Amino acid sequence: MKSKKIQGIIPPMVTPLENQDELDIEGLEKLIEHIINGGVHGLFVLGTTGEAQSLSYHLRYTLVDLAIKIVNGRIPVLAGVSDTSFVESLNFAKHAYHCGASAVVSTPPYYYTPNQKELINYFIAFADNSPLPLFLYNMPSHVKVNLDVETVVNLSMHENIIGLKDSSGNLLYFQEVVQALKKVEDFSILIGPEEMLMQSILTGGHGGVIGGANMFPKLYVEMYGASVNRDLDRMNILQEKILKICSNIYSIGNSGGGYLPGLKAALCHLGICKNVLALPYSAFGENEIREIQRKLDSMDLEEWI
Amino acid sequence: MKSKKIQGIIPPMVTPLENQDELDIEGLEKLIEHIINGGVHGLFVLGTTGEAQSLSYHLRYTLVDLAIKIVNGRIPVLAGVSDTSFVESLNFAKHAYHCGASAVVSTPPYYYTPNQKELINYFIAFADNSPLPLFLYNMPSHVKVNLDVETVVNLSMHENIIGLKDSSGNLLYFQEVVQALKKVEDFSILIGPEEMLMQSILTGGHGGVIGGANMFPKLYVEMYGASVNRDLDRMNILQEKILKICSNIYSIGNSGGGYLPGLKAALCHLGICKNVLALPYSAFGENEIREIQRKLDSMDLEEWI
Amino acid sequence: MKSKKIQGIIPPMVTPLENQDELDIEGLEKLIEHIINGGVHGLFVLGTTGEAQSLSYHLRYTLVDLAIKIVNGRIPVLAGVSDTSFVESLNFAKHAYHCGASAVVSTPPYYYTPNQKELINYFIAFADNSPLPLFLYNMPSHVKVNLDVETVVNLSMHENIIGLKDSSGNLLYFQEVVQALKKVEDFSILIGPEEMLMQSILTGGHGGVIGGANMFPKLYVEMYGASVNRDLDRMNILQEKILKICSNIYSIGNSGGGYLPGLKAALCHLGICKNVLALPYSAFGENEIREIQRKLDSMDLEEWI
Amino acid sequence: MKSKKIQGIIPPMVTPLENQDELDIEGLEKLIEHIINGGVHGLFVLGTTGEAQSLSYHLRYTLVDLAIKIVNGRIPVLAGVSDTSFVESLNFAKHAYHCGASAVVSTPPYYYTPNQKELINYFIAFADNSPLPLFLYNMPSHVKVNLDVETVVNLSMHENIIGLKDSSGNLLYFQEVVQALKKVEDFSILIGPEEMLMQSILTGGHGGVIGGANMFPKLYVEMYGASVNRDLDRMNILQEKILKICSNIYSIGNSGGGYLPGLKAALCHLGICKNVLALPYSAFGENEIREIQRKLDSMDLEEWI
Repeated sequence: MKSKKIQGIIPPMVTPLENQDELDIEGLEKLIEHIINGGVHGLFVLGTTGEAQSLSYHLRYTLVDLAIKIVNGRIPVLAGVSDTSFVESLNFAKHAYHCGASAVVSTPPYYYTPNQKELINYFIAFADNSPLPLFLYNMPSHVKVNLDVETVVNLSMHENIIGLKDSSGNLLYFQEVVQALKKVEDFSILIGPEEMLMQSILTGGHGGVIGGANMFPKLYVEMYGASVNRDLDRMNILQEKILKICSNIYSIGNSGGGYLPGLKAALCHLGICKNVLALPYSAFGENEIREIQRKLDSMDLEEWI
Repeated sequence: MKSKKIQGIIPPMVTPLENQDELDIEGLEKLIEHIINGGVHGLFVLGTTGEAQSLSYHLRYTLVDLAIKIVNGRIPVLAGVSDTSFVESLNFAKHAYHCGASAVVSTPPYYYTPNQKELINYFIAFADNSPLPLFLYNMPSHVKVNLDVETVVNLSMHENIIGLKDSSGNLLYFQEVVQALKKVEDFSILIGPEEMLMQSILTGGHGGVIGGANMFPKLYVEMYGASVNRDLDRMNILQEKILKICSNIYSIGNSGGGYLPGLKAALCHLGICKNVLALPYSAFGENEIREIQRKLDSMDLEEWI
Repeated sequence: MKSKKIQGIIPPMVTPLENQDELDIEGLEKLIEHIINGGVHGLFVLGTTGEAQSLSYHLRYTLVDLAIKIVNGRIPVLAGVSDTSFVESLNFAKHAYHCGASAVVSTPPYYYTPNQKELINYFIAFADNSPLPLFLYNMPSHVKVNLDVETVVNLSMHENIIGLKDSSGNLLYFQEVVQALKKVEDFSILIGPEEMLMQSILTGGHGGVIGGANMFPKLYVEMYGASVNRDLDRMNILQEKILKICSNIYSIGNSGGGYLPGLKAALCHLGICKNVLALPYSAFGENEIREIQRKLDSMDLEEWI
Repeated sequence: MKSKKIQGIIPPMVTPLENQDELDIEGLEKLIEHIINGGVHGLFVLGTTGEAQSLSYHLRYTLVDLAIKIVNGRIPVLAGVSDTSFVESLNFAKHAYHCGASAVVSTPPYYYTPNQKELINYFIAFADNSPLPLFLYNMPSHVKVNLDVETVVNLSMHENIIGLKDSSGNLLYFQEVVQALKKVEDFSILIGPEEMLMQSILTGGHGGVIGGANMFPKLYVEMYGASVNRDLDRMNILQEKILKICSNIYSIGNSGGGYLPGLKAALCHLGICKNVLALPYSAFGENEIREIQRKLDSMDLEEWI
């Protein structure tokens, strides 16, 4: 029997850093309190927004442990275990289990490119051995392979696979998955890009893994509620705010990391954590930071911080 | 001052496995002896052909140590340290140094997609801190980003960066790099795909990192010599053999791993190591193995084993 | 001053054919009557669904002329003038004008790949010279280049450019365009893929260019109305039907033409036109036709034909 | 029986223009004399370098006619008939036949994306009906689909299909085609990118369709001879020159047309034809023209003009 469905707003937590191999522990505490105060339904540590792949294993093990202690049972914690190595990924899932995580989240391995049959074998072997239930994580831009709809349907039959986080940005795919899994109970389908949270809920999705909820958790929690209640007028007002965040904060600079340096600079400006990124990315310089500050201050978002 | 130039045939060693997290040590010894007997100029462990990314760190640390002990100074050993995490990659380089490796080889980080400026920062930070000289590894099909010619030129100025392995399969790119680096001494430019070894040497390259040299090291060593000596008649005869290996052994099955399962099955048939692959790939089944056997036996390659 | 806004359901008409270079005139008449009876808001001839690029110019000239005569002013007719040659495209726009078309629709030229600046020059030169107002047509899967949001904004300032048909299937892009053009009056933003009609209207779009409306015009006209009226319950019922059409009719066979052979076979089964496609595509064989028939008969769609 | 094999250097002729829809006839005459004086083995009009797809049909019909009259039997003329419409393409092949062309050259249709089976059907239907023998033209960057090796092998059996021009820039593919067609007599395999002419001949190719031969026909003719004679020393000297042309002339500016504006500006500077491009491209402005002049004058290429 599958565990209780995980849905709603589950922020992919930014990882506060002191330097390349040390956590900003004060920042971590502040960030988790800030997110939980926003009313979110879960916390996802070590996802793409958490720069997981750029961190050492030592740091990743410590982070899961600490984050779960800080959360202290208030909301479920999901741990990202995506790796290129099956053995490392499974070992990390066992660690997360011992720390008290509620589930693990895994992309396909992302150096080699398995075909769909190999993906199915991989995730079934993983789910058979994992002490924690598994969320599939579709992220073709970073992973190179897509989890085909048939693959997701196949894997959804496994009792230890409980959901899909789809960050493809492809609503046609998302909708196909929702249709195909309509009759699978206790399977949760979450969207990645926050610009599509509203449309994904209307399409039948169950929530969102929303980077912006590190900054403005209340905004996305309210959007989730408005979408579930089909309050189109409220949704349109909130969507306006969300799109402004995306166009103002995420599009600054020209890093290959896209929204990441902007997000971390904004959290720093909001007094939440340090502005340090793991290589291959770097913190913004003064000009970009000033631009972030100016835009944040002009967007009239205080009530959702 | 840069170290002595590494050039010639440097096989990317297959990693012999007992199972997902254990080495086939007997196979490892046999394989290394087999390769060295073929007259190669170096050995590259934990590259793409070595399934590095699919292996646990524990196994990778052990493998470098063991391989260098078996080689015992007869040829230089290069260790693959490609990772998504700068810290893990550098730690592994330090381990390889203590084991006695001659150089390390690194692709760009392959989950996030750094831009060229970020790539330069990444590799300079790495080379500044690495106790071993660094070979850049261009592998856009797996890594998603290409090392632009200007980036390679820029990095070639660093005294701890000693070469490029180019597995792009793009001769136009390879030729541009050769031209651009003509005047940089002690910088070694090696080709990946073995079908292009001949043309790459004629274009000005310095050798090849050739998966097929796990099976037939003498063949590729002879091709290298013929190419350096510009013996076009001999080259054409050898190229015929090489292309047959590629079309016969590497194209069997439809794994996302391409040539990998065929290569390992062939090494098993030649009595060198076990036919075990790390997830996400799997060893061939009976039908494909029989096909491999039939083709190997029909290709008349005994003299180059 | 721009012409009256063109919005709502504007089917991209299938081109009924007798053979490679002859129209199925009886089919053309039946099809147009069928579509108009469905209550659509316009007709788009010679789009992607109309196989425009596969037809000779002689046939294209004839088709525009005939279709406009048959429509006889009941709804606006838009003529596809996409070409690789500016001169041919403009000549065809002049012909469409003389026939009485309401507007022309053009993708970027699709053999060479202009950059965004060259795209702007191209469309401005076109709009300056065209006797008919221009709809931009974004179709990156076929054209290779995307019309960037900034490019669309720039071109929307031209008084002879009146809208965008976006067939990218990328809702993030669509939403950005809608946001960016909010204050441009009389600019119409239409969606391509019919699976996203509902979401696009909720996102602020003005209608759809819907291939399925060749078969079931009433269904899409009703969905448009329900979406404009924000009747979410009705939308969900209709969306169920639409997704079934897509998964049942468009996914049969493995032609590079995707939905095209299925659509034409279905129209033939519905007694509307002949089942003839222009090269490089071919009509379905018996097996696929039987599958289409079986699925059409089982889908309970009579009321929307 | 197939016609005599067409091989050697066959420049894809630039189309000299007065304006968007008029030929620069004086330029055309000068250019053809210039090319023939260079000793080339054939002339290919209306290829990618000839901006064929950007020109009106009226202009294309005129150009084939005029070019063949000017050539006047001195060398074979190949006419590009690539189109998205089978009927237009075949009509144009008939025109070329009446004008006296030796063969036609065709890419796959480039708006829709046929699968390999549909490509085979398309080209067989074409070859069955064409009064002139057909060269296949592989150009995946512009056409989106690649002619798979098996497809080329299949089509090479048709007696009216006499060769392949491969502009993929992929030497692995080129080599596979050469191997696969070794035993097909009278089938000619020509390379596109001039930087790879030398390596393609050593790999077993039969010549090149070389844009730079519009400027420096003698250089490429000499390279072809040196390659056939395996004069590696001479080849290296000439390759140096060729690579300089590519890096100096083709890389100026940032047009989506790549080398095209530079090539036309250079021909203008050499006094051969006007500097007019067809939309979507435009002639270089003053700065780029001065850069071209400066580089041309500094490259010491007079003897090969």
